[in-house]
Amino acid sequence: MKIKFADYLVQRLQELGITEVFGLPGDYNFKIVEAIENNKDVKWIGSTNELNAGYAADGYARIKGFGAMVSTFGVGELSAMNAIAGSMAENVPVIKIVGAPETKHIENKTLLHHNLANVDYYAFERAYSNIVETTAFLNKENAKSELDRVLEVMIRSKKPVYVAIPVDVCEVEVEDEYKKVAIKSNSDNLKCATEEIISLIKKSKKPIVIADILAQRFAAKKALNNFLTKTKIPSCSFVRGMDIVDNDTKNYMGVYSAKLANKVCYDYFNSSDCIILSGCVLSDLNTMGFAYNFKLDEVVDIQPDYVSIKGKKIENVLIKDLFEALYEKISYVSEENIIPEFGYKKTTFEKDEKLSAKYIYPRLQEFLKEDDILLTEVGIIPFGAMPMKFPKGISVQNQMLWGSIGWATPCAFGCAMADRSRRTILITGDGSHQLTAQEISAMMRNKVKPVIFVINNSGYTVERILCDNVDYDYNNIASWNYSMLPKVFSGDCFVKSAKTNKEFDEVLKEVENEQKDRMCYIELFTDYLDIPPLAMNIVKHPEQLKK
Amino acid sequence: MKIKFADYLVQRLQELGITEVFGLPGDYNFKIVEAIENNKDVKWIGSTNELNAGYAADGYARIKGFGAMVSTFGVGELSAMNAIAGSMAENVPVIKIVGAPETKHIENKTLLHHNLANVDYYAFERAYSNIVETTAFLNKENAKSELDRVLEVMIRSKKPVYVAIPVDVCEVEVEDEYKKVAIKSNSDNLKCATEEIISLIKKSKKPIVIADILAQRFAAKKALNNFLTKTKIPSCSFVRGMDIVDNDTKNYMGVYSAKLANKVCYDYFNSSDCIILSGCVLSDLNTMGFAYNFKLDEVVDIQPDYVSIKGKKIENVLIKDLFEALYEKISYVSEENIIPEFGYKKTTFEKDEKLSAKYIYPRLQEFLKEDDILLTEVGIIPFGAMPMKFPKGISVQNQMLWGSIGWATPCAFGCAMADRSRRTILITGDGSHQLTAQEISAMMRNKVKPVIFVINNSGYTVERILCDNVDYDYNNIASWNYSMLPKVFSGDCFVKSAKTNKEFDEVLKEVENEQKDRMCYIELFTDYLDIPPLAMNIVKHPEQLKK
Repeated sequence: MKIKFADYLVQRLQELGITEVFGLPGDYNFKIVEAIENNKDVKWIGSTNELNAGYAADGYARIKGFGAMVSTFGVGELSAMNAIAGSMAENVPVIKIVGAPETKHIENKTLLHHNLANVDYYAFERAYSNIVETTAFLNKENAKSELDRVLEVMIRSKKPVYVAIPVDVCEVEVEDEYKKVAIKSNSDNLKCATEEIISLIKKSKKPIVIADILAQRFAAKKALNNFLTKTKIPSCSFVRGMDIVDNDTKNYMGVYSAKLANKVCYDYFNSSDCIILSGCVLSDLNTMGFAYNFKLDEVVDIQPDYVSIKGKKIENVLIKDLFEALYEKISYVSEENIIPEFGYKKTTFEKDEKLSAKYIYPRLQEFLKEDDILLTEVGIIPFGAMPMKFPKGISVQNQMLWGSIGWATPCAFGCAMADRSRRTILITGDGSHQLTAQEISAMMRNKVKPVIFVINNSGYTVERILCDNVDYDYNNIASWNYSMLPKVFSGDCFVKSAKTNKEFDEVLKEVENEQKDRMCYIELFTDYLDIPPLAMNIVKHPEQLKK
Repeated sequence: MKIKFADYLVQRLQELGITEVFGLPGDYNFKIVEAIENNKDVKWIGSTNELNAGYAADGYARIKGFGAMVSTFGVGELSAMNAIAGSMAENVPVIKIVGAPETKHIENKTLLHHNLANVDYYAFERAYSNIVETTAFLNKENAKSELDRVLEVMIRSKKPVYVAIPVDVCEVEVEDEYKKVAIKSNSDNLKCATEEIISLIKKSKKPIVIADILAQRFAAKKALNNFLTKTKIPSCSFVRGMDIVDNDTKNYMGVYSAKLANKVCYDYFNSSDCIILSGCVLSDLNTMGFAYNFKLDEVVDIQPDYVSIKGKKIENVLIKDLFEALYEKISYVSEENIIPEFGYKKTTFEKDEKLSAKYIYPRLQEFLKEDDILLTEVGIIPFGAMPMKFPKGISVQNQMLWGSIGWATPCAFGCAMADRSRRTILITGDGSHQLTAQEISAMMRNKVKPVIFVINNSGYTVERILCDNVDYDYNNIASWNYSMLPKVFSGDCFVKSAKTNKEFDEVLKEVENEQKDRMCYIELFTDYLDIPPLAMNIVKHPEQLKK
């Protein structure tokens, strides 16, 4: 059947599970936004700005599989660029859709608004081509084939793609059929890789599996957990993969970080004779400053679509298929009986003390429930989450590679929109929150009910500890009355603040009740140099923190 | 004398009149920010996010000549991209400075944070190369010569440039001397152009000079005014140049827009036999939808560094030099005695009526004073300003080409920082304000005292009138209590709102007093379809406004 191209686009998004599209309207994208509003199953979600829309689409994709955002040409699309680049770095599949001027104006080089004055209408697509997996600038002839192509790239790579759609192309009639994307391992290669890995495990004395982000992004989480449950092989994760392995799994040792914090894991890892990297990204912060000794040609490195076994690369093996095959074929069961040392000990709140990280994170660990979505903003906050023991089914979101402050607030909005049946919990800091705080208003407008903790520590604390002097003025920020923000944005919200550990404990008890009915926005006051103990690993001048 | 490269950079900024640098710190730019903090004449101005920092630098440059902003690598620089592209479109010279990772990590392709996971450290420079005049990625060898080169390009083109500075390059010792950029016309060409234009004027019966934005950007404003005062040649401006010609100049006819609004000007313009375009950009909104009949090869087109006389191009003639030479050489005095019809008539506020554009803009015209800086946010607001008669020395800022909603609030911050002796007045709308509202906090932190009017008309009114149905849901926005925002950001502020014409009149009287001591933040409630009469020219379905 023939349908309008804009309707075809929305239909394809819906088939990917995208039932909410984030963005801002603009005169070049009206026809796209109207096609969304006209589709009964897909909703338009207006964001307060395009960067926030991009972050929200990122959050949505992290929970639901795929995300989409729409902006207008030039102005809107460039504002979203950092968010989309973040999805690229973090391997989050988002489609960036841009409404462009009419084809005839592009061809005639008419000097229209949202143009750099040089009538080069492809400048922004070229800019985007540096930060996404692929781009397409549609015209009436290629609209369908090019959209199908970029969607296939997004589905395969789980990375963001970009498509610019001129106003007139929206109205073109296209066939509504398309070829489903089928992604399969090569069965011979899969068999070969499975046998070799099983053989290595059997020969080894101390095998270890390290779970990381790409196992989650490429849908191998369940297969990996089944494999670990069956084999009881000791396992751990890098920071970005801390929510992948069910924390109660036999011989799971928590987040491999620095030896100081998790000696059981660190020692086992570094004495292992068979390291199996599972979807790992060996970046600075993810590995706590490259704190590992192995070389890649000594280990099993399972990547999304290939595996490298002691330097020998086997192509066309999907990580999910591989763990399913390993689970199927392996008979090995580890005899280790490791007593892991992760998880905060229960805190007591009898004595009233100034609130600090040593109370916040252990208490938050208690607060967490099965299937929660936890967002830890860029900065020192992930260091507070790393030692936690998590309940089943939790999703922990961070941005340890891209590291864009401000990401977490709009991302939390996207996560909350992706699954209203789960509880979304955001921990952010004042410095980060200021960049994107207005997205709180989108949360209230859309009646999602996240629990938000804003740590008010008077500035960019993570930068204080990374630079030469913790008191440099440039790490100070404007002083805000955060607790008043929800009132600006109207809507229903439970607002409280805490300055002591006791107050915090009480507030969390209240939140337990309140969060069922409404959003909770909690301001936590801590010292400007208060950091989770694990963050001591990145402090440049530890002596300055002791004054 | 040898000095550290970071200090050399700051010294060069200072010599361009940049005594305030906007931005956010990040671990790759610490050395740059510290060099700014260590320079006694240059101040670091922390912004709430990078987009806002970019807009602020744009505003600063619009008033002070040049602007600079600093961000960190990847994350920060991409967030600022829309603002810098806006400076490109609007011909505003801003240097975008990026702190990059250490050279050795770039060369070794170490997988560091703020990276797309592909260790391609030049991806962001390449992205920027599409939206600025030139870029440079410095290393220890080329640091000084490349910085000098990009600054020269910025000074000549009055467009933004980009420079990425790896951490280690900041410490390199360089000579603190450099060659001053000398920009001169070719004297033969200048003489030839001057003579030809004078000859054309003498031969013509109805010459007209149209002033536009590039005359201001390339410092020809004074020369152009001297020329018009001496010759009394009838003149007008396009929208972007509405503050260029002193409004009391004999035979100045206001903003050439659509015939409906300024018939005297429209008729004279379209019957002229000698059209002299002075720094004009013939874009859609600037010319009210290409509402002119001339062809470029029939007119005198004076551009920043060349002039085209009836299709004959004479290169290397600077607009400023040309108007100075024309002023010097010409003896012609026009005998026209035009009675212009621009300027709102004085409004009366006796009857209490619902506040609307028909009261707001005439009353604001009365409110304006000599040397004010007036910012008109993207959307319908410039249409309210176009018919105004302005006092001497006013600077009116708009973004009629780039048209990025949200630009005006941070831009007003930059303008206010550029000259604390002038009064900065911002008129914005709720839809736009939500994108960048947090920069109000930077204003308060830095104790500037702009007068801010937020028109609360429940959504994107400009888009309501441009799309097929004024009631499409996508043009609605979250409802904010704008008047509470200044309290969130603390600091001293006069806050009021007005719902009727009488209230508005009273509020403006109060503002007259209050604005000397503190910022004023005024919320104006109008109907969701209330627009300045001139904006009727862009309404897609006028019948929908009459219901």
